[in-house]
Amino acid sequence: MEFELIRQYFEVPFAPLAQAHRQVVGQGIGDDCAQLCVPEGHTLFVSSDSSVEGVHFFSDDAPFDVAAKALASNLSDLAACGAQPMGFSLNLTLAKPQPAWLQGFSSGLLHMATGHACPLIGGDTTHGPCNMVSITVYGCAPLSHHGFHRSRAKAGQDLWVSGLPGLARLGMWMAYRQRGLLNKLCESPGEADQLDERLGSMPVSLSHLALQAFNRPEPRVALGLALRPYASACLDLSDGLAGDLLHIAQLSGVAIELQAQPLLACWSSTLGQVSSQHADWLLDTSLSGGDDYELCFTASVDHRQAIEDLARQAEPSLFRVGRVLSGQGIWLTHGDGQALPVSKASFEHFRPRGTTSLPS
Amino acid sequence: MEFELIRQYFEVPFAPLAQAHRQVVGQGIGDDCAQLCVPEGHTLFVSSDSSVEGVHFFSDDAPFDVAAKALASNLSDLAACGAQPMGFSLNLTLAKPQPAWLQGFSSGLLHMATGHACPLIGGDTTHGPCNMVSITVYGCAPLSHHGFHRSRAKAGQDLWVSGLPGLARLGMWMAYRQRGLLNKLCESPGEADQLDERLGSMPVSLSHLALQAFNRPEPRVALGLALRPYASACLDLSDGLAGDLLHIAQLSGVAIELQAQPLLACWSSTLGQVSSQHADWLLDTSLSGGDDYELCFTASVDHRQAIEDLARQAEPSLFRVGRVLSGQGIWLTHGDGQALPVSKASFEHFRPRGTTSLPS
Repeated sequence: MEFELIRQYFEVPFAPLAQAHRQVVGQGIGDDCAQLCVPEGHTLFVSSDSSVEGVHFFSDDAPFDVAAKALASNLSDLAACGAQPMGFSLNLTLAKPQPAWLQGFSSGLLHMATGHACPLIGGDTTHGPCNMVSITVYGCAPLSHHGFHRSRAKAGQDLWVSGLPGLARLGMWMAYRQRGLLNKLCESPGEADQLDERLGSMPVSLSHLALQAFNRPEPRVALGLALRPYASACLDLSDGLAGDLLHIAQLSGVAIELQAQPLLACWSSTLGQVSSQHADWLLDTSLSGGDDYELCFTASVDHRQAIEDLARQAEPSLFRVGRVLSGQGIWLTHGDGQALPVSKASFEHFRPRGTTSLPS
Repeated sequence: MEFELIRQYFEVPFAPLAQAHRQVVGQGIGDDCAQLCVPEGHTLFVSSDSSVEGVHFFSDDAPFDVAAKALASNLSDLAACGAQPMGFSLNLTLAKPQPAWLQGFSSGLLHMATGHACPLIGGDTTHGPCNMVSITVYGCAPLSHHGFHRSRAKAGQDLWVSGLPGLARLGMWMAYRQRGLLNKLCESPGEADQLDERLGSMPVSLSHLALQAFNRPEPRVALGLALRPYASACLDLSDGLAGDLLHIAQLSGVAIELQAQPLLACWSSTLGQVSSQHADWLLDTSLSGGDDYELCFTASVDHRQAIEDLARQAEPSLFRVGRVLSGQGIWLTHGDGQALPVSKASFEHFRPRGTTSLPS
């Protein structure tokens, strides 16, 4: 059964993609290892992430989305390093092989893999107490590309984000709200009620966008490649702006100024006018919300024009939302010039029951 | 807690190993991707395997062994391709982080990683319903090395195995027997009683060896490297000789003759004289037993002397147990010249609740 399952849902549908990339995928089907040819003069980038049913996705989530998001979150790590995807391995744990679920899963995986020219090169399937997806992606970049290391931000540089930081967190709340589970994310019933009320007052169009961002994120692979000449430090927003920027600030030995006005402009570009009732809350959501798989990067002021040109040419939108300064910590500045320190703890509400990266 | 857990059990203890291999491990701690430098003129080999609590290991197994075996099974795939380990990623799912378990796990992982010069380069930890280990290993070999593809066996070549095929299966049965769980592996109580009786009649010294082979397998990395000039097809014995050899026979378009006498000689090299009461059963165990992580390979008769020299110099023992013939299928020959076809089905008793590899 299991060999047949692998053949039907993975080997057969993914064969054309592997065939199209046979100069990279060296070893054929059915060997102990997969073989990859890293082009001469290139470095290999790898990233590995797991998604567990009941922790990272709901049992009733569409299997298409579960698969696409699991691969997207890994591809997003390559994007944040400016690496070109080469392939991925899939370790799939199944509580019970269900053809309908596997069909949806396989389709979602193939959709995302094809969209980013990333063939499936190996892995395994195992039985387990719940469905679980563990993916490792392989990518490469020329040796001359430094990989946007987080220690490379410099005082005086601009801070940019793609898309709308916090939108996916809004989507996560909405997904919990749809299932009557907001209390699982809140410390008190009062907090849950308040969140419920806020979400209820959001325009329907925003709900759709937010759920889309949460369930079907699009990794910014093309953007990561386009940024190679420009970005100094870069990461993908998985822990929220405040938490993620703290990594850059600490490793680069700099302070980072986030500006409230352009951050709110990100929201109003989607929402139209943001009411003052929502402004502070949306700002908090941008700072604390994770799972965005959008890129956040620093770049010299000299590259500002080139990056603005890039933003005009391609999805997603890019927003200049702050600056790198000498000093330390993350600061939020408002229009009146007031600068407030942003402690990471102050934005750790509503954490997903989550995942933490090992050193890599 | 989780960041602290990663720091304490993985980042700190594994740092010296990463430091010792810093020419390979390009990217430092704390980035989206790990970076690996595949030496110029080399191909990358990757393999990925998961171990699930209650499926691949018992809840009361020593965490040292769980970790060492999880990495060993991946390293064994590199060995079967003649690839040199470069590093590995760890995706660890924990039901509940328990310091004593994590300490043992970290020690076992470091023991195996250090023994094979294979630094930890990244991964993630997640919460889940049970403990689960998903590992991806990276290795390399010169472009001139063909990687022992399973399609490369040729009629007239010798068939070799390392160690004692089936010993780990004996160990698995003993591990189940110790826990009073033999019935989980058998289709009827009568079958379980018979297995129980057979295992009970085994010498104690063999029980120790078998449990050791099952709980703490040693991947044959050095042997895989030494075989580069000699082996044509090679694989690691994870599904049992009969099942694994079928892959080689089918992909190479050849028949394979297994000889009962040298196979029994493998057993008697450990057991002393094998009684006729046990002979058939041990032969069956060799053919059907998996999880050995020993190498099985074909090689030209011209290399016989070189391989025998290799066997004399190093652990583990190598045994010449058959030949590649023109034709198809797997055949078992006895001293009297009688050749019986070996159907895979006939050796699928007592399958572990197992794992199946995706195409790679």
